[in-house]
Amino acid sequence: MRPEEILGLIDHSVLKPDATADDVIRACELGARYGVAAVCINSCWVELAAQHLHESGVPAGAAIGFPLGATTPRVKAGEAYNAVLDGARELDMVINIGALKSGDLELVRDDIQGVVDTSVEAAEVVGVECIVVKAILEMCYLTEAEKRTAVMTAVEAGVDFVKTSTGFGPGEATTEDVALMRELAPPEVGVKAAGGIRSLDDVVMMLEAGASRIGTSSTAAIAQGLQRGGR
Amino acid sequence: MRPEEILGLIDHSVLKPDATADDVIRACELGARYGVAAVCINSCWVELAAQHLHESGVPAGAAIGFPLGATTPRVKAGEAYNAVLDGARELDMVINIGALKSGDLELVRDDIQGVVDTSVEAAEVVGVECIVVKAILEMCYLTEAEKRTAVMTAVEAGVDFVKTSTGFGPGEATTEDVALMRELAPPEVGVKAAGGIRSLDDVVMMLEAGASRIGTSSTAAIAQGLQRGGR
Repeated sequence: MRPEEILGLIDHSVLKPDATADDVIRACELGARYGVAAVCINSCWVELAAQHLHESGVPAGAAIGFPLGATTPRVKAGEAYNAVLDGARELDMVINIGALKSGDLELVRDDIQGVVDTSVEAAEVVGVECIVVKAILEMCYLTEAEKRTAVMTAVEAGVDFVKTSTGFGPGEATTEDVALMRELAPPEVGVKAAGGIRSLDDVVMMLEAGASRIGTSSTAAIAQGLQRGGR
Repeated sequence: MRPEEILGLIDHSVLKPDATADDVIRACELGARYGVAAVCINSCWVELAAQHLHESGVPAGAAIGFPLGATTPRVKAGEAYNAVLDGARELDMVINIGALKSGDLELVRDDIQGVVDTSVEAAEVVGVECIVVKAILEMCYLTEAEKRTAVMTAVEAGVDFVKTSTGFGPGEATTEDVALMRELAPPEVGVKAAGGIRSLDDVVMMLEAGASRIGTSSTAAIAQGLQRGGR
């Protein structure tokens, strides 16, 4: 892969709670410069990010129900709707982990489905073709059986990507989880590896395991790795 | 203070994303048995908790914008409104830390005020006198000047409590922060210490520093400390 192809698979992320408006603007400038897939921010920064990304064509991605996933379907859908109206074109929503671990798969599905349905509705309102929805499964909390259930439930609910981690949990993206997701999800559903990806080597490892999108805050370091001819 | 007075100042908290319905029910049973001030849960569990606490008279407390505080005022207000309709009688909302660090005090205030105003509106809808609103300032991220600004902004916005921490950040409640909050806030505004409080000794230290409410998941251990005549 050429360097720009690798950079084009990266969701450059600024998700820390103490990130400032300046941090968000700098992230957008960096994202535009490198032609990343999206710039992911918390939902209060979507409007600002969308403004600063506008000319570049790089979409703003909003984190929804982030990072615990423990809000209600109504709240997640409302957050998703508002994020799209504020300018988000991608939504990274955290599934209801507690509901999954309680065996309440109906709630898990309704929760994801609510965001998918809302994204369709909101896309019409703002006049865009579609909004990319990613379900963050936060694999570090899940048993092997729960991981499989989570992937299948998210796929059934109609997401565009399944994603490994928030980066805020006790575990990071693993190549095993990425490979499992790639194995279970149909080809049209992407796999996003996120959490603990800090170098070009990490990126390559995740791509080789089957990831089609990479979430990281270390985009500058990865771009430097590419410049040095890391691959 | 008598043991039951100390227990009556505790917000028993179950906030981990992988907490199950059974964990929430057990927390409510424990909270009812010890007569705690409130049982704090993530907003997707409010309805279940309110059902299981109903007979005890112990209120359910909902975490709002938790734990990053990085959603919009509209989203936080919507989450607060829905939580009260689901049965919450206390709301622990995280302030917009990034806005504070960006110097956008208007957004910080509007964000808190939105939850306070919504709580009044929702209280009328459900027919209760009032909803207790606590602003979580997540002191570990703030400079000394920002801590002071955060307390004063929350007080101006009309909260009932200022609270030190979410328990998810890189820092926990400190006696210095509690004392600062107690010094700055008027007497009618309470101070809630939360984050890293695991024993009766921790509780007593925080109360002596000026806390009037304690957030902890270690209520059982604290109750055992009291039974052993720890104080």
